[in-house]
Amino acid sequence: MDSPPATGPGPRPRADAALADRLALSVLAREGSGVRTADVPGLLAARAGSGGYLVDRIPLDALCGWSFAPGTGDLAHRSGRFFSVAGLRAEVGGAAPHAWRQPVINQPEVGILGLLAREFDGVLHFLMQAKMEPGNAGLIQLSPTVQATRSNYTKVHRGRDVAYLGHFTGPARGRVLADVLQSEHGSWFFRKTNRNMVVEVDEDVPVRDGYLWLTLGQLGELLRHDDVVNMDTRSVLACLPFAPETASALHCDTEVRSWFTEERSLRDVRAELTPLSSVTGWHRDRWAISHEEGRYFEVVAVNVRAEGREVPQWTQPLFHPLGTGVTAFVTRRFGGVRHVLACARREGGFLDTVELGPTVQCTPANHAHLPPDRRPPFLADVLNAPRSAVLFGTTLSEEGGRFLRARSRYLIVEADESTAPTTPPDGFIWVTPGQLNSLTQHGHYVNVQARSLLASLLTTEEPHLSA
Amino acid sequence: MDSPPATGPGPRPRADAALADRLALSVLAREGSGVRTADVPGLLAARAGSGGYLVDRIPLDALCGWSFAPGTGDLAHRSGRFFSVAGLRAEVGGAAPHAWRQPVINQPEVGILGLLAREFDGVLHFLMQAKMEPGNAGLIQLSPTVQATRSNYTKVHRGRDVAYLGHFTGPARGRVLADVLQSEHGSWFFRKTNRNMVVEVDEDVPVRDGYLWLTLGQLGELLRHDDVVNMDTRSVLACLPFAPETASALHCDTEVRSWFTEERSLRDVRAELTPLSSVTGWHRDRWAISHEEGRYFEVVAVNVRAEGREVPQWTQPLFHPLGTGVTAFVTRRFGGVRHVLACARREGGFLDTVELGPTVQCTPANHAHLPPDRRPPFLADVLNAPRSAVLFGTTLSEEGGRFLRARSRYLIVEADESTAPTTPPDGFIWVTPGQLNSLTQHGHYVNVQARSLLASLLTTEEPHLSA
Repeated sequence: MDSPPATGPGPRPRADAALADRLALSVLAREGSGVRTADVPGLLAARAGSGGYLVDRIPLDALCGWSFAPGTGDLAHRSGRFFSVAGLRAEVGGAAPHAWRQPVINQPEVGILGLLAREFDGVLHFLMQAKMEPGNAGLIQLSPTVQATRSNYTKVHRGRDVAYLGHFTGPARGRVLADVLQSEHGSWFFRKTNRNMVVEVDEDVPVRDGYLWLTLGQLGELLRHDDVVNMDTRSVLACLPFAPETASALHCDTEVRSWFTEERSLRDVRAELTPLSSVTGWHRDRWAISHEEGRYFEVVAVNVRAEGREVPQWTQPLFHPLGTGVTAFVTRRFGGVRHVLACARREGGFLDTVELGPTVQCTPANHAHLPPDRRPPFLADVLNAPRSAVLFGTTLSEEGGRFLRARSRYLIVEADESTAPTTPPDGFIWVTPGQLNSLTQHGHYVNVQARSLLASLLTTEEPHLSA
Repeated sequence: MDSPPATGPGPRPRADAALADRLALSVLAREGSGVRTADVPGLLAARAGSGGYLVDRIPLDALCGWSFAPGTGDLAHRSGRFFSVAGLRAEVGGAAPHAWRQPVINQPEVGILGLLAREFDGVLHFLMQAKMEPGNAGLIQLSPTVQATRSNYTKVHRGRDVAYLGHFTGPARGRVLADVLQSEHGSWFFRKTNRNMVVEVDEDVPVRDGYLWLTLGQLGELLRHDDVVNMDTRSVLACLPFAPETASALHCDTEVRSWFTEERSLRDVRAELTPLSSVTGWHRDRWAISHEEGRYFEVVAVNVRAEGREVPQWTQPLFHPLGTGVTAFVTRRFGGVRHVLACARREGGFLDTVELGPTVQCTPANHAHLPPDRRPPFLADVLNAPRSAVLFGTTLSEEGGRFLRARSRYLIVEADESTAPTTPPDGFIWVTPGQLNSLTQHGHYVNVQARSLLASLLTTEEPHLSA
């Protein structure tokens, strides 16, 4: 692409000093210039009820345009686009080496998750879309303004234009506030990357049916409601450059990056795509591809009717996780400064071996057959925490365009030295939300689950104005 | 790994405000506490002359412990370690799609390039090693304190201990000043990553034979001598967190990252390892694997005698590029602020499609058969620049442990609006050295050639003290 035109005759500041304060002001605005915060969940539910949406499980062989390729057995669309379900062979070295095979979603294209921003009465608002996705709990959730795969915006599915896309891709696009490539679920996707963008405009933008302007404070409130703010929104919000609440932390930024570098250096993860037909330990019947012991997830198919979408009817495969997940940050204050306990997670689908994840990230049902001491660290602590210690607890959906009712209990739980010591176990590190937010300015440091929790920390904690 | 122990009872500053000034002071020190700068090249040459070193080309079938694997044809060591020569299949989409196959070095282990730092008389010095590597022009060059593959430090080659390694890997290591995973040549390596580290100690460290303490100013001076400062040193120096000369630039940092994100999103690069035997367009005889039209490089074998090394005699393959390269930044001042023209380079061996490279990076001989308008942009400009416009011009060697006399003319050339316009061609962007240096705090933004040029900019330009 052309580099952005240089504005004015010469150099200008490398950093936008005012932006962090403007974001903080928007967090403080628990109501905005449009719809009342409390009305949003009902509005989404009403839309879901009246939208003429139907999502039905169908047999795999009833998929239209999708088929299992001869030879590889991969489940792919006849256009060769969208995504395919292939096999993954992964191998993890180190102290407890193991290897496994599984089905995985292969979607090499980079999609755009674009959030449009504009000031109303001096307060930044963000243009949210009440978007139906077949896998969503409640069907309709708040998505970014634009949520488009390359197939979407190059019209592979012969649908209508993607609304507002020109604000993110055109030469006339607005001022970029955030723009970074981030990973998605490394357990279900093979090296999936999306472009997380926030673009601010100064001019009026027509608000189409199903779109609404909300402040960060409103989004923070709505994150406390189950299944209202979708995963893509959470991911993009975490990439905005907020002001750090403090310039102090247990570990300086260089130490945090050094610890991360060592984790990446030492973790020996090898993963590659294989034919789906070579995936052992999984079996396929008419309705699903399932794990032999009934764990992890199933690959299923749905038929979708959705009047408000670019295409009013289609069929597609979805991954359907078995059981609700637990995604939790344990948190403590050190010298008054909030920290969360991040974990160096290795997932087979990551581009680069390790990313920072939450303290706990698992589906408890997958570990129920194990003795307690082999279950994920801190899981029991967050599940058994007293109500008063739970700062945040909401059940949220993962990407409804790929996952069928993939829900997880997102928790932020206060701990103390006895449950979460200052010197944590191998593979964990205490960082501030501000440190994580510095890292989300770059790609592939913070995984999508940690970005979800970070979004709620950044939009619901008392923000700090630099002035 | 364990996270670093928290120092003291609570949070401390996230950033080390004094470090940038200490680095600037070291750049200003054109002489240090030890050997005189002007004596270093002679010292290296004397060592090369007296060291009993012999590097001889041998036939490929005279390699000891290395052989072409039946089936794949890959050239590998019988231990399965070090590295292997495999095949690469690469495909680039976009406006000018093309595909090719080539031999490539596959070395999945992460090596350590570690530079030890210490203050003498209040000035930071760095412990350099006068190190022999078989492919080096002049054989001995200044390397970081530690330059070790995992095979090295896990003793696959049954050699002696790696000196000073404990300062970088042990629990008792010093204060980390830089620690980041960086790529190496994407045209010759498949996804090679090295850990670039700088660690400061306060205590006395015994100086072994062949090691010397130098300031950044001394290294900057020595970078003006051909083949004295090796590639690994240049790479590590570029990762130190220098103070930016200015907080202004043509494009703010968010714009630069956004431009980079777009380049990565759009560039359609697919690359994978294949058996060496499947690489068409190359042929193998007794002495080399060569390109059919005599371009690019040859895979050759050498026998090495080196008394001062961990192992006194060995044989190994090396890549031998045909012709001297040109690696150049075009530079201009905008509003008095130095900028360089970076290029979004796609190389088949990069982990993630695109990195920022120099304005020009090529071996002219590989393009001599093309009409002038199809040769690399800016190549003619930098080659024909008047002497007075050349701010920096030194012939430097690439990694001498993998490449045989891989030399390139490193240039920094002043340009003006007529040769390098403010609005540059597609795929180029004006950035300040400070902006590049911010990006080298993270991995896979700035390629190894651009890091080399950046090292010379950071250690030879007048440094700016924040005070």
